[in-house]
Amino acid sequence: MNPSDLTKLLDNVRTGKTTVKNALDRLKHLPFEDVAYAHIDHHRSLRHGMPEVIYCEGKTVEQIAGITKRMLKAGSDILATRASDAAYRAIKKLDKRAIYHKASRAIVVQHTVKTLTKGVIAVLTAGTSDIPVAEEAAVTAAALGSAVHTVYDVGVAGIHRILSKKDVLDGARVIVVVAGMDGALPSVVGGLVDKPVIAVPTSVGYGAGFQGLAPLLTMLNSCASGIAVMNIDNGFGAGVLAHRINLIGE
Amino acid sequence: MNPSDLTKLLDNVRTGKTTVKNALDRLKHLPFEDVAYAHIDHHRSLRHGMPEVIYCEGKTVEQIAGITKRMLKAGSDILATRASDAAYRAIKKLDKRAIYHKASRAIVVQHTVKTLTKGVIAVLTAGTSDIPVAEEAAVTAAALGSAVHTVYDVGVAGIHRILSKKDVLDGARVIVVVAGMDGALPSVVGGLVDKPVIAVPTSVGYGAGFQGLAPLLTMLNSCASGIAVMNIDNGFGAGVLAHRINLIGE
Amino acid sequence: MNPSDLTKLLDNVRTGKTTVKNALDRLKHLPFEDVAYAHIDHHRSLRHGMPEVIYCEGKTVEQIAGITKRMLKAGSDILATRASDAAYRAIKKLDKRAIYHKASRAIVVQHTVKTLTKGVIAVLTAGTSDIPVAEEAAVTAAALGSAVHTVYDVGVAGIHRILSKKDVLDGARVIVVVAGMDGALPSVVGGLVDKPVIAVPTSVGYGAGFQGLAPLLTMLNSCASGIAVMNIDNGFGAGVLAHRINLIGE
Amino acid sequence: MNPSDLTKLLDNVRTGKTTVKNALDRLKHLPFEDVAYAHIDHHRSLRHGMPEVIYCEGKTVEQIAGITKRMLKAGSDILATRASDAAYRAIKKLDKRAIYHKASRAIVVQHTVKTLTKGVIAVLTAGTSDIPVAEEAAVTAAALGSAVHTVYDVGVAGIHRILSKKDVLDGARVIVVVAGMDGALPSVVGGLVDKPVIAVPTSVGYGAGFQGLAPLLTMLNSCASGIAVMNIDNGFGAGVLAHRINLIGE
Amino acid sequence: MNPSDLTKLLDNVRTGKTTVKNALDRLKHLPFEDVAYAHIDHHRSLRHGMPEVIYCEGKTVEQIAGITKRMLKAGSDILATRASDAAYRAIKKLDKRAIYHKASRAIVVQHTVKTLTKGVIAVLTAGTSDIPVAEEAAVTAAALGSAVHTVYDVGVAGIHRILSKKDVLDGARVIVVVAGMDGALPSVVGGLVDKPVIAVPTSVGYGAGFQGLAPLLTMLNSCASGIAVMNIDNGFGAGVLAHRINLIGE
Amino acid sequence: MNPSDLTKLLDNVRTGKTTVKNALDRLKHLPFEDVAYAHIDHHRSLRHGMPEVIYCEGKTVEQIAGITKRMLKAGSDILATRASDAAYRAIKKLDKRAIYHKASRAIVVQHTVKTLTKGVIAVLTAGTSDIPVAEEAAVTAAALGSAVHTVYDVGVAGIHRILSKKDVLDGARVIVVVAGMDGALPSVVGGLVDKPVIAVPTSVGYGAGFQGLAPLLTMLNSCASGIAVMNIDNGFGAGVLAHRINLIGE
Amino acid sequence: MNPSDLTKLLDNVRTGKTTVKNALDRLKHLPFEDVAYAHIDHHRSLRHGMPEVIYCEGKTVEQIAGITKRMLKAGSDILATRASDAAYRAIKKLDKRAIYHKASRAIVVQHTVKTLTKGVIAVLTAGTSDIPVAEEAAVTAAALGSAVHTVYDVGVAGIHRILSKKDVLDGARVIVVVAGMDGALPSVVGGLVDKPVIAVPTSVGYGAGFQGLAPLLTMLNSCASGIAVMNIDNGFGAGVLAHRINLIGE
Amino acid sequence: MNPSDLTKLLDNVRTGKTTVKNALDRLKHLPFEDVAYAHIDHHRSLRHGMPEVIYCEGKTVEQIAGITKRMLKAGSDILATRASDAAYRAIKKLDKRAIYHKASRAIVVQHTVKTLTKGVIAVLTAGTSDIPVAEEAAVTAAALGSAVHTVYDVGVAGIHRILSKKDVLDGARVIVVVAGMDGALPSVVGGLVDKPVIAVPTSVGYGAGFQGLAPLLTMLNSCASGIAVMNIDNGFGAGVLAHRINLIGE
Repeated sequence: MNPSDLTKLLDNVRTGKTTVKNALDRLKHLPFEDVAYAHIDHHRSLRHGMPEVIYCEGKTVEQIAGITKRMLKAGSDILATRASDAAYRAIKKLDKRAIYHKASRAIVVQHTVKTLTKGVIAVLTAGTSDIPVAEEAAVTAAALGSAVHTVYDVGVAGIHRILSKKDVLDGARVIVVVAGMDGALPSVVGGLVDKPVIAVPTSVGYGAGFQGLAPLLTMLNSCASGIAVMNIDNGFGAGVLAHRINLIGE
Repeated sequence: MNPSDLTKLLDNVRTGKTTVKNALDRLKHLPFEDVAYAHIDHHRSLRHGMPEVIYCEGKTVEQIAGITKRMLKAGSDILATRASDAAYRAIKKLDKRAIYHKASRAIVVQHTVKTLTKGVIAVLTAGTSDIPVAEEAAVTAAALGSAVHTVYDVGVAGIHRILSKKDVLDGARVIVVVAGMDGALPSVVGGLVDKPVIAVPTSVGYGAGFQGLAPLLTMLNSCASGIAVMNIDNGFGAGVLAHRINLIGE
Repeated sequence: MNPSDLTKLLDNVRTGKTTVKNALDRLKHLPFEDVAYAHIDHHRSLRHGMPEVIYCEGKTVEQIAGITKRMLKAGSDILATRASDAAYRAIKKLDKRAIYHKASRAIVVQHTVKTLTKGVIAVLTAGTSDIPVAEEAAVTAAALGSAVHTVYDVGVAGIHRILSKKDVLDGARVIVVVAGMDGALPSVVGGLVDKPVIAVPTSVGYGAGFQGLAPLLTMLNSCASGIAVMNIDNGFGAGVLAHRINLIGE
Repeated sequence: MNPSDLTKLLDNVRTGKTTVKNALDRLKHLPFEDVAYAHIDHHRSLRHGMPEVIYCEGKTVEQIAGITKRMLKAGSDILATRASDAAYRAIKKLDKRAIYHKASRAIVVQHTVKTLTKGVIAVLTAGTSDIPVAEEAAVTAAALGSAVHTVYDVGVAGIHRILSKKDVLDGARVIVVVAGMDGALPSVVGGLVDKPVIAVPTSVGYGAGFQGLAPLLTMLNSCASGIAVMNIDNGFGAGVLAHRINLIGE
Repeated sequence: MNPSDLTKLLDNVRTGKTTVKNALDRLKHLPFEDVAYAHIDHHRSLRHGMPEVIYCEGKTVEQIAGITKRMLKAGSDILATRASDAAYRAIKKLDKRAIYHKASRAIVVQHTVKTLTKGVIAVLTAGTSDIPVAEEAAVTAAALGSAVHTVYDVGVAGIHRILSKKDVLDGARVIVVVAGMDGALPSVVGGLVDKPVIAVPTSVGYGAGFQGLAPLLTMLNSCASGIAVMNIDNGFGAGVLAHRINLIGE
Repeated sequence: MNPSDLTKLLDNVRTGKTTVKNALDRLKHLPFEDVAYAHIDHHRSLRHGMPEVIYCEGKTVEQIAGITKRMLKAGSDILATRASDAAYRAIKKLDKRAIYHKASRAIVVQHTVKTLTKGVIAVLTAGTSDIPVAEEAAVTAAALGSAVHTVYDVGVAGIHRILSKKDVLDGARVIVVVAGMDGALPSVVGGLVDKPVIAVPTSVGYGAGFQGLAPLLTMLNSCASGIAVMNIDNGFGAGVLAHRINLIGE
Repeated sequence: MNPSDLTKLLDNVRTGKTTVKNALDRLKHLPFEDVAYAHIDHHRSLRHGMPEVIYCEGKTVEQIAGITKRMLKAGSDILATRASDAAYRAIKKLDKRAIYHKASRAIVVQHTVKTLTKGVIAVLTAGTSDIPVAEEAAVTAAALGSAVHTVYDVGVAGIHRILSKKDVLDGARVIVVVAGMDGALPSVVGGLVDKPVIAVPTSVGYGAGFQGLAPLLTMLNSCASGIAVMNIDNGFGAGVLAHRINLIGE
Repeated sequence: MNPSDLTKLLDNVRTGKTTVKNALDRLKHLPFEDVAYAHIDHHRSLRHGMPEVIYCEGKTVEQIAGITKRMLKAGSDILATRASDAAYRAIKKLDKRAIYHKASRAIVVQHTVKTLTKGVIAVLTAGTSDIPVAEEAAVTAAALGSAVHTVYDVGVAGIHRILSKKDVLDGARVIVVVAGMDGALPSVVGGLVDKPVIAVPTSVGYGAGFQGLAPLLTMLNSCASGIAVMNIDNGFGAGVLAHRINLIGE
């Protein structure tokens, strides 16, 4: 029930078209409905060209295709994360514009070409094995409309690599740092800049890495201040957050 | 050594005021110093009225007073976190303007009154026991120059409490959510807004809370996207990051 | 040895048909046997139309079919949990009435249609991936004789979803809440009602979810009081407990 | 805004005393307010003679006394948990009827004597060191209005002890089982009855007990079905839940 | 109810002194009572000169003295573990024969001098800091009646130390090995003998020892077969088990 | 080289049958070999008909067959644990007497029928899924020469089951208790007897059972004294230890 | 940019050959470039005949072959770790000199035969299952140019085995000890020598070994001093470190 | 007993000077004695001027003084670690030359001034709170005879700090890196040098640092190769190992 519906209802009460009792009946469950309405509204404002997101892990190709079909019909752009090749082929059949970002296993369908933000999100990785997670962050942010600059394999064991990327760090508005194993890169980056740094631990590594626990703890305990941490391998979340921060400056 | 210093030095070499040998002496450690210089420079830009931060945990009152003295002499503002009453009294002796924020155990000394940002940082807590950590975030962000709006005790077990604060959520540019026990508040807040949300787990609780591990994991696994997490009880870090994000919109 | 057997034995002693020595021999191991008897008796009262439960995980199809056959012959209804398609086909051969609940992987065989309780158990999930566990709870409770109302995908990241289900919450006698990832839904539900809430963490999620550890800790630390927690993915246990609580009001 | 307020507002619209615009203004923030209202309403129904609960851990005596004073003035009964002797003396000064349950460190103030439920909650402990947690559950349930029967020190290492309490188990509507160390008692009790069993692990023990982790895991993995688990040492939560279950049968 | 009681009851039924109904009444609760009886009986056989054990941790001196008094009156010997100096002085007042084993913090009161077993229990420690736990094992086993041979500070970092104790290993019937830090001694001992080895991890150490978790895991994973493990610091349990094994050979 | 071999060698030196140089060659590695010799000697005493043990996990069928062949040639009996069907067929080819214990996946080859001990080892399980581990213990102990009595599926959730096995408990010299899930059975058994109890946790269960961690902790924290614990699923170790304890009474 | 370059630049400024602005441009990016340069230089000195290392886990055969091709062209020797058979065949096609070390799954390609160090690295394992990790260490160290002596299956459960290898321990300059399960071997070795000992835990074992956590903790807590620990299964790292230590003595 | 002793013994047997029985007696305890002897020998070579080490944690001042007295009498130098002020005063009384290193809480007593090694051990810390652990390493290595160069507070959050210490890194033979919180410094150092790096995690930090677990895991997972890790806060062990490595180059 939106404001104009409410006005209409009150007008009807005023003119006697609706009894007070009937109006009361419609209004008394309002709290819950209205929150829903508010939420949908907020969603709408969110969605000026924003893609709908489908997390594909654990969904069958049929389910993914079904959801996609419904969303495309509703005019939404699509971002499907952790999607298999098969999922891509199914979506490609539904819409020729579908693009598969193989490294990140993300599928994007856009109805119109989007103007990207002026502000740039830098996405860095420590190693080459961290790239899929970084790509998920980059593709997500780009699909939401952010300009993205990726720099890979600049881990701290060769410290000159990140130091030589000063221009990238200087040119970015917000920085996503993806690292597995020792997860040390965000601490170094956090000490070089005074911008928001989003750290994403990856499950890359073995033994006492415990599937990403080691870099997760490293990042939470970073001696550089102003670093926030995402769940292990959560490139998507990092992309969303980086985009939201980036939008503040547009 | 900033660009204008360098220019001056080179000018002096050109005009003969400085010999090549003397200039060389000053420049020969430049590679490393220069990184330092870059860093100092970046620090300087950081420090237009920015406070120096002293983490007091594990330092003696004498050490804290010593560092403060040196910094005050250098003209810096001071932010001392996790400071005891005794530390406060020692700093108060050094500078009458020192203010002790008891709840957050933070001491602030400012040479001049600062103009706050137009953008507002909202700092929320789930319970009343989370307030000290939230206050650390709030005092930190304010000391750095951000306008802060705090709303406490709006945990999800009384969901109407956070829902009734829609105006606060709407009015903020970035939101810090502090919660112990189940750590569920950031997920709810993250679902109500499309702004950056910084989640801070606290060590509040008992038993299987494991000194903050439970809310830490909750927040890392939030089903709302775009939430980043700080270390347990790290209000300071949240304040710094929130301020950095807030600055993007100024 | 039931009461009438005992009476008969004592009568035989009284009338001399049995010597004291013989009676003593039969009675001297009574403690243990009798507990067994008590237990069986209690079991009997438990089983007025109650199904026998077969946990299929780790059993071969042959074993499952064998147990089912014996139980059906004994007149028992059957509830087989975590059953494969193959197990279903084997049981279907034994009894045409067998029904396979695919989502929960549960098989039910009932000799007669059961009258359900007047009291209703609400079973909620935070996400769609939590549905299999919720279905296990729902099918279990229903097989035991409880009326069940399921509401899925009402997680806290879209808080309006659970708020719009006030009538379901109001209409239930006991509520089972199933959630993975951040496991925050039970806290919100627990704050909206003053009824027993049974929380079931699921292994849904990734990274720092640690196969259900994150929502398990969240739920144990819920800031809403009166919430009890089951093992990870233990829909069956939740169904049994909810039914037992529900029966109190019949 | 309650139903009669709403009726009045609509009547005013109908009769022209309030313009549609003014009514709209009052209604448009309804969603949030109304949830709050609903909640307060639900709270009210909750509070027919229900005590207000104060969790004293981490609060100063002054804070506890302040909260108590306000609540007593509002006519509420009081249940203060994890309260020190000093807290008790402060509350005693405010109201002579205050009673201190030393074992559970709980304070109760009741304005009138309450009629207890007909249904009984049994509270059992495995050892004598588990008694404080059990007492917290018992005092809580009693303060809420439930009849409680406590049986202590009936752990499984002397299995005859719990077996000899068959009458207590038979006479109860819901059973709270408190145990530290191996946490095995709930499994045995759960196998003897077909009633709801609430298991509470305690931090009693040493070494590989890991402050209650061992019994917590034991209880979550109970091989008896229908057992739900509370946080470590959470006697209060167990008391609330047991009371809620007990009320279903009244 | 012992066999002769039962015979008497059946005789009374036979002769008509007791009605069948009365006998039935007495017998129908037998299961529970009888288990208790069996247990008490077994206890009795256990207690020919066996001490009663009081675990003092968490008990007040008054409680300890009270329990001791009652037991001494009942003629029992006393073994009080983890007892403070104060507890010792209180027990000493009750009985002059009380002996305080300071290293193990155990108090023993014996009414008569006991003949020790012919079989010997060897108790070894890796380091000197493990001695208190070893002493608890030794004092416990001795108080139960076993001959004990202790050898301390023979850890594997000086492998010749344990090798030079071949005679002790050869002369023992069962071996208790107490070790903190790396917990490696039981593996070496287990490889040198073909006797039962009981390993007790201690909380000695620091850092990644995690209060005994490290040696606990070491011992559970011993590459020597036939080693069983006790809880961290559980010298008492090791003493009881070693004595029980030792008794088999008497 | 045993004492009589040594004597013979020295005799040969004395009588000139062996030159000093030859004797020296045999003896010169003695220090270390002698430890080996002691070890081998002890092995020999161990091996009056004792089988050689092959842990098959991670070995190829060829490797297993190779080791078996060599051992059979040396006259040893064979016990191969965690063996596949294929390993069995390979060994069967080598020796027709090979027997495959399917439940425990153990293969036994014995040259002569062994006289079993008079003392009996009782092996109990809580559930049916614990049987493979229990069988490994039973087959191991039997292969070493112990009489074994197995009783399965007597978990504490049906407490009458273990109580009805009093005769088994009474008749055993040492008791192995195998349990997964809550791991509570050893505590109950430990309270019923005053014999050595060896507890073996199994990885049976799911969720918060954490692959056997839950029952492992339960058993380490048993409130019954005199219980020692083996590694998760370590039936072989339990069998060896039980046999060693059993031998003490022969 | 070395001192003489700097002097030249300053001279040019002095004489007017270079403008101040141009000099400033060259100097302002100095820090980053210089570090990079230093690093490259250091790399060069590192690579006199040193192999390039390819970690094959998670790389496709095509990727591995591609990297190898480029490196061979550049004249580098190759060390490919954790390589599959397929990777070997692909590299063999590129260069006939490729050798596959099957146990360690390492491939080595060397352009010329290398003179090994005079100092020897001893690599020991506790069991046979630890050999692959030990071989990775041995092959790595050898490929780097160190002489290596391997001794396998000398675990502490048969202590004579390591004692009989005194000559190996005496002859080595640095010792790598690889062990799974209880991880006790490094403590014993560390007590026998006063040389650097590098301990490598392996994921060998089961149950409470937790994939190598148990030996990792054992080794970190070794009661022998002077032992350092590598990540679980990190034979490669141990080989590199051992070689670096070994080089100190050449 | 060396080969020539053995030859003599055998000769005596051959010639009848020694009976076979006497020879047998001398030979049968050989293994153990010999190992012990070898060990003592090796100890002797170890102790040319080496200090005896006393780990003071958990020892009383009396015990420490007692041990020291005995050792001083034996002519040993003393290194007492984790020593209190009181321990120092007690040792000072025994020997005026005692020096207390307050930061590391280590006491050193040396009979003669030692010539230090030509090779230098660099000891670095990330922060100022890591200094006590670093000092323990430095004092230990120095007491053993190594030249030590300490550089503190060069953590990665200000990367220029470690980069500006290139000369220290270049001048050292082995490097000890001490770090708490994120533990990232060893990875950076490991990438800058090709020397042995010993990483020591400290318990400095809070929250998800878990008393040193976070930096421990970081270091074990370092992406720079050739780094070995010590137990948390184990400065002593690092000092010993660094010295042993340093000696190789003397």
